[in-house]
Amino acid sequence: MNKNTLTVFTAFLISTILFGTESFAQDYIVPEDVQVNVDFVWTLLAAFLVFFMQAGFAMLESGFTRAKSAANVILKNLMDFSLGSLAYWGIGFGIMFGISETGWLGTTGFFFSDFSIDKDPWLFAFWMFQVVFAATATTIVSGAMAERTKFIGYLLYSVVISAIIYPVFGSWAWGSLYKGSGWLEAMGFIDFAGSTVVHSVGGWAALAGAIVLGPRIGKFNKDGSVNPIPGHNLPLAALGVFILWFGWYGFNAGSTTAASKDIALIAVNTTLAASAGAVFAMITTWVKFGKPDTSIILNGALAGLVGITAGCSNLSPFFAVITGSISGSLVVFSDLFFERIGVDDPVGAVSVHGVAGAWGTLAAGLFNSADMFNPETVGVQFIGIAAAFIWVFPTTFIMFKIIDKTAGLRVSPQEEVQGLDYSEHGSTSYPDFSITNLGS
Amino acid sequence: MNKNTLTVFTAFLISTILFGTESFAQDYIVPEDVQVNVDFVWTLLAAFLVFFMQAGFAMLESGFTRAKSAANVILKNLMDFSLGSLAYWGIGFGIMFGISETGWLGTTGFFFSDFSIDKDPWLFAFWMFQVVFAATATTIVSGAMAERTKFIGYLLYSVVISAIIYPVFGSWAWGSLYKGSGWLEAMGFIDFAGSTVVHSVGGWAALAGAIVLGPRIGKFNKDGSVNPIPGHNLPLAALGVFILWFGWYGFNAGSTTAASKDIALIAVNTTLAASAGAVFAMITTWVKFGKPDTSIILNGALAGLVGITAGCSNLSPFFAVITGSISGSLVVFSDLFFERIGVDDPVGAVSVHGVAGAWGTLAAGLFNSADMFNPETVGVQFIGIAAAFIWVFPTTFIMFKIIDKTAGLRVSPQEEVQGLDYSEHGSTSYPDFSITNLGS
Amino acid sequence: MNKNTLTVFTAFLISTILFGTESFAQDYIVPEDVQVNVDFVWTLLAAFLVFFMQAGFAMLESGFTRAKSAANVILKNLMDFSLGSLAYWGIGFGIMFGISETGWLGTTGFFFSDFSIDKDPWLFAFWMFQVVFAATATTIVSGAMAERTKFIGYLLYSVVISAIIYPVFGSWAWGSLYKGSGWLEAMGFIDFAGSTVVHSVGGWAALAGAIVLGPRIGKFNKDGSVNPIPGHNLPLAALGVFILWFGWYGFNAGSTTAASKDIALIAVNTTLAASAGAVFAMITTWVKFGKPDTSIILNGALAGLVGITAGCSNLSPFFAVITGSISGSLVVFSDLFFERIGVDDPVGAVSVHGVAGAWGTLAAGLFNSADMFNPETVGVQFIGIAAAFIWVFPTTFIMFKIIDKTAGLRVSPQEEVQGLDYSEHGSTSYPDFSITNLGS
Repeated sequence: MNKNTLTVFTAFLISTILFGTESFAQDYIVPEDVQVNVDFVWTLLAAFLVFFMQAGFAMLESGFTRAKSAANVILKNLMDFSLGSLAYWGIGFGIMFGISETGWLGTTGFFFSDFSIDKDPWLFAFWMFQVVFAATATTIVSGAMAERTKFIGYLLYSVVISAIIYPVFGSWAWGSLYKGSGWLEAMGFIDFAGSTVVHSVGGWAALAGAIVLGPRIGKFNKDGSVNPIPGHNLPLAALGVFILWFGWYGFNAGSTTAASKDIALIAVNTTLAASAGAVFAMITTWVKFGKPDTSIILNGALAGLVGITAGCSNLSPFFAVITGSISGSLVVFSDLFFERIGVDDPVGAVSVHGVAGAWGTLAAGLFNSADMFNPETVGVQFIGIAAAFIWVFPTTFIMFKIIDKTAGLRVSPQEEVQGLDYSEHGSTSYPDFSITNLGS
Repeated sequence: MNKNTLTVFTAFLISTILFGTESFAQDYIVPEDVQVNVDFVWTLLAAFLVFFMQAGFAMLESGFTRAKSAANVILKNLMDFSLGSLAYWGIGFGIMFGISETGWLGTTGFFFSDFSIDKDPWLFAFWMFQVVFAATATTIVSGAMAERTKFIGYLLYSVVISAIIYPVFGSWAWGSLYKGSGWLEAMGFIDFAGSTVVHSVGGWAALAGAIVLGPRIGKFNKDGSVNPIPGHNLPLAALGVFILWFGWYGFNAGSTTAASKDIALIAVNTTLAASAGAVFAMITTWVKFGKPDTSIILNGALAGLVGITAGCSNLSPFFAVITGSISGSLVVFSDLFFERIGVDDPVGAVSVHGVAGAWGTLAAGLFNSADMFNPETVGVQFIGIAAAFIWVFPTTFIMFKIIDKTAGLRVSPQEEVQGLDYSEHGSTSYPDFSITNLGS
Repeated sequence: MNKNTLTVFTAFLISTILFGTESFAQDYIVPEDVQVNVDFVWTLLAAFLVFFMQAGFAMLESGFTRAKSAANVILKNLMDFSLGSLAYWGIGFGIMFGISETGWLGTTGFFFSDFSIDKDPWLFAFWMFQVVFAATATTIVSGAMAERTKFIGYLLYSVVISAIIYPVFGSWAWGSLYKGSGWLEAMGFIDFAGSTVVHSVGGWAALAGAIVLGPRIGKFNKDGSVNPIPGHNLPLAALGVFILWFGWYGFNAGSTTAASKDIALIAVNTTLAASAGAVFAMITTWVKFGKPDTSIILNGALAGLVGITAGCSNLSPFFAVITGSISGSLVVFSDLFFERIGVDDPVGAVSVHGVAGAWGTLAAGLFNSADMFNPETVGVQFIGIAAAFIWVFPTTFIMFKIIDKTAGLRVSPQEEVQGLDYSEHGSTSYPDFSITNLGS
């Protein structure tokens, strides 16, 4: 019996003796009821913040690419959320959080069926929080594939990842809402808010997409040297970073899905790691290139955020700073590496989400406050990191190949040169302005 | 007597017997106190989110119109909120929520008078939530009247709608804070968060404004054919849509004005309807025009949001998807209809807010989970929908005519061609950029 | 003994007698626990909103300055937050809220040391709320120093103000987290959310910076007449204002750092004062210059917000309107004054934050609901206002002079003409657009 109920019952007994019977139980509120209401409020507000990250991705990716495709990439962000949330409602959520007998995927709860919703409105709150996470993983890919991907091909991808690829991995690491638990979480894998589950999954899918597509026209010369293609609107990209950082507080602290004191340390770690990521990206570019590079600093802050996502609740602030600092430096070298091997990732999504996500997951094991530098914990983290790559990269690679051969993945060279805003949607983003490099 | 108080009192009695008297009652917290605090937190945070929708409207309307009037329409958004909140403080709130003896309008509570505020700080929380709703209805109109409305004329309009036109209808459908209730709510009219009360009211006022003003110079040829006037900054407009969607979670879920489990279903329905709206607007334009149109998809998401606003708390997720899907398609045809009859609505506000608001209000009756397809319920919904049009369209039409004859509603053709930023405010929005169509 | 505990204990005694002993205490929730959780949720969500103000400052300052330095000022905003939060973690928080034996500065708690964090996670929540305040004070300065300040010089400044100058003053007015209290708060100084502590401190540092730097090339002619240098992107600046207003609800209402009914009046006062600020700035410019000026109206809304910050919890709504109205007018004349004495403040930060902050602090004493127009209270307010100027202006003036002589504070004339985006960071903000005034 609930202890408050016991108190009330005891008091009721005494009251009855003292005052006679009363209609006692009707609209009584016990503290547990209030706590549940606060949990709903917190989880939903956090979900709204994570939703807003879609705006951040859209502005970041649009700002980091060219004016002639500025609206197309935003539309991809909007539509992958829209299609993705319908797909996650219909299929993905059941795979990720439905009853999993095997530990490999859930098989119940499609279209909100099977769950007794009337008895458990928490399901809706939990779904709301999860759908915005699925959408984050999905939308990461749009940036790496920007400026050359057919709209229809991208839409198909976004349904498949939201319905199947993301939820399957999610069920391994997080899927224990009802009966059964994923095999990775059963091993003790630490990924509190999704450095691997969300960001690396998105990052490796982005890598597969960028490879299958090939680079934008003009990005690489025949001798392998690189032509930088600068983003058309850095203030817009910076706005995206601020929005992402803001929304990330919901992403990390909201992952408690409960209103508790724990959210404070998470917020502090998120702040310090993002700050350290920006600072060390700045220092690294300053030392390496002679100037603090705008785009890389912006990505450094994001890398700090991605890096702390796994360990935001189990690291001390000091190690949050360390984790973020390394994330910020890492992204500089990672970007150069992928460019050198011929991958054209216009916004740096693979480095920021894939690589910093892997590092952050490792850091969550290495710097685990409860048991630092425990080789067993670190080993499990490696297994999780590897499992993400092994699951996501091949499946998305094959998927993009299939889309390429069927609906088509890449626009024609003429359409690409013209810009995707006009060729795919029949309008341009900035009709009142003189655009100087439409032909490039 | 409050039951917790009873418990405490009983415990106090026993405690007194066992331990002697203590200063017992002073800073004691019962669960009801905490619940009230959470209700304040939730209602105010939701209000802040709804406030932020002003930024969404401003960016949307600016992005969907021309560079030469980009700041003017934003200033109208800012000033209608600023003047409107003062007018709602002074007059509107009293009309909408003051004591209504007749069911037709409140007559107390102007300037926070009459309400015993010291005893009821909830009034401030409730006002805060209501003022941002009033501002939403008001600001919808600015988009439909963009690029040709005199600043002074718009300011006059915004005071009248915030102080009188919106609150009067609001008092019919929602006005039962204190004594008395509106005639529409007494009939059982369902409009949980304001598809009709806020959005259709704004939409029909926008229609009246666009008709009284007439189309922008160059929009229609003498033979009635249409010259599209594309928006000058689609990324900005898209940012507006993301901000609006984000804020809409406060708009719909916050309309509980209480922290409870009910907010979860509302958030889910809002998400699914908006997604479905975007998807079906995309499909409709793709089929009809051969390409998925950027601006229409953005408006489709908004139409989905407007559509679910009335029924967000009483529809199942499945019917939220249906409601949003129809909203998204409807807005395409509605836009074409208004263009065909010669109404120049630069941002599509009449279709998104007026038409989708009416449809959503109907859907809230049709798909009411508790009692689906009940003709009586549907009948009441029709009465509410009609009442909004019959009240708002004529009164705002007359008001705009009066403003036109007195302070002036439309700028001169020279000022319109020059752009309202310079002619009305003496500065341009983008002085460092080459603007190509200033003369068009 | 906690009263709920007493109740529970009493009930436990009775229960034990009636039902025998049970494992009673384990996961029991008392209302106080829930209240604490809500306090965490409220304080952290408010902190996230205040963090988002960084985006507002970035967009405002970028929009109000020229395209050729659009990203540089945003990067300064980002880096002053990033470096500043690390500095505040290491040093500033300890100075501001560590144990202050003298009332002049705290001397414990650096790098979260000394505080027993495991026992008090509230410390993290409180730090999170405070670090975003420190960052606000810091970032105000970037606007006044825009378009001519060396990046390295600005970084040095941002560390010094976050680590020392802001926290020292903060410890005088607010610093009583643990033992000891600041001398100003001991006198009864009223500055609820920081009109002086945050905004005037930032404003006077901005004034010192603008004076030490000198005006931008071309701002003033040899005869002292002024060449206006218009902002390059007014929609972006307006977006900044909306974001700031949105975040300000967290700034003011969150300053309760507790979920209570008090937050409602604060939100109402914030809304009305900002609205009145915009309206009176509009009226003032309309009367004075013949047209309602875009930039000044935007700054008027901000001035209203700054003005109400000190008195948002102790003024009635009517006096919030008065305070905001005067703030909005004041900023027009203050801007003209500083321009006339040769200070080039590209975004008006000194007037908006310094001057309106001082006025708001005075208003919080004058219009104090509990005891209106009490000369003693007003006197203390004057002391606080003066103390801020006397502490901040000289120390920052000297600091900027030292930076100027060592790392360098101002870029070369060639770099300034070229624009700071390219000269400091090697890239331009809008490479796809024709920029018309790069040379000006």
